[in-house]
Amino acid sequence: MATASLDVRGADEARVDYLLRLGDDALILGQRLGEWCGHAPALEVDLSLTNLALDLIGQATHLLGAAGDADQLAFHRDVLDFRNCLLVEQPNGDFGRTIARQLLFSTWQHLLYQRLSESSDQALREIAAKAVKEVAYHYELASEWTVRLGDGTDESTARMRDGLDWCWRFVPELFEVDALLEGLIARGIAVDPRKFEDEYRSALAAVLADAKLDVPADQRPILGGRRGHHSEHLGHLLAPMQYLPRTYPDATW
Amino acid sequence: MATASLDVRGADEARVDYLLRLGDDALILGQRLGEWCGHAPALEVDLSLTNLALDLIGQATHLLGAAGDADQLAFHRDVLDFRNCLLVEQPNGDFGRTIARQLLFSTWQHLLYQRLSESSDQALREIAAKAVKEVAYHYELASEWTVRLGDGTDESTARMRDGLDWCWRFVPELFEVDALLEGLIARGIAVDPRKFEDEYRSALAAVLADAKLDVPADQRPILGGRRGHHSEHLGHLLAPMQYLPRTYPDATW
Repeated sequence: MATASLDVRGADEARVDYLLRLGDDALILGQRLGEWCGHAPALEVDLSLTNLALDLIGQATHLLGAAGDADQLAFHRDVLDFRNCLLVEQPNGDFGRTIARQLLFSTWQHLLYQRLSESSDQALREIAAKAVKEVAYHYELASEWTVRLGDGTDESTARMRDGLDWCWRFVPELFEVDALLEGLIARGIAVDPRKFEDEYRSALAAVLADAKLDVPADQRPILGGRRGHHSEHLGHLLAPMQYLPRTYPDATW
Repeated sequence: MATASLDVRGADEARVDYLLRLGDDALILGQRLGEWCGHAPALEVDLSLTNLALDLIGQATHLLGAAGDADQLAFHRDVLDFRNCLLVEQPNGDFGRTIARQLLFSTWQHLLYQRLSESSDQALREIAAKAVKEVAYHYELASEWTVRLGDGTDESTARMRDGLDWCWRFVPELFEVDALLEGLIARGIAVDPRKFEDEYRSALAAVLADAKLDVPADQRPILGGRRGHHSEHLGHLLAPMQYLPRTYPDATW
């Protein structure tokens, strides 16, 4: 009996960890895109990026809410307990790099959420089914901008290519499967990302061909975000975000 | 003939100035609310304020687009040429002051846009008819938060009361009618705000009664935003917003 209940607890903890991985991806990328608010090169871009930020923060609210108390998890968790992939915490850089990051992430998120909407976990299934429509639009927007910049002026081409080169080493982490994920895949809760890695690479190759850009050369992968090994950038992102709620921890106003 | 054509040009310039007044109100308040993105005390609040920011920047895009090139007007105009009221450029302060500013502005904007949706000017009529639904929600949200904070804890009551006191001196500017506005009112393009000042004050009094707060005592009004006499706060808001587009003025990327 003790073992059985421990198993159940272990299984629930794995599920919570998976919800944190997905929720933190959305929360941190939403924060990053929110940093563009009022700083984008044109009003149209400002609106688009703020819309994306809003979608992502909404998704994070649902995912973290399924894992526990969303506000506690967003505002009162230490940096080492964040489970997002390293790609989403990378600084915005210039607009080219922001679009590269968005393309690499939302192509992955779109393929993942399509499959997650058939998860054996009801909460995940419902959240993914709703979010996949938003993510389809993010993917479309990122693809269009990639083509517009890549097949644009000399400067925009260079910036888009540099942005993709910079972000490329964070792609392998998206397809990493550790023991925790193995267990959840076996139970039908999580999706095995390796199952759609070929499709991911083909989709990217098609967009890059339209953009008249080469697929970047593979680099030494950088891993560790899912285990809490983050770059210094995440701490710098969390500090201003968590400052106010931490300063007034019991404020109901 | 020369006089007639001058009249027409004068009239068009007045219309453009009115579009700038309304567009700049929305743009500057949208920027201010966008500053909360990632800094609000809870995810729900973050989402609400970002949503409001998005609505307002969308309205600004339409209004400035009717006045000329929206991006040029937003990003390449000097601070003295902005026509927003002083209320919207005030710093966020704490959450209580942000909500006070939002209540005082969106109550006014809601009454104005209801009437503007019958303007003799087609562009204004269409923009106002669409925006009034968004603004109705802003007004509702600000009213609810005013009651929640005002009729909340000792601290939230004090913050809400201080916020209202701080913002109160900027209300008279909302009802100021200068020669330019007179001319546009006579032509049925603009709405005379004095016609709904009583309704404005009653609506506020009702919300404040629900919030168990007194109506603030009248203070010496601060005026001048419509003529380009702004506080130093507007320059500080515009600098980071205009930096990127001004640095790359011809960038199409």
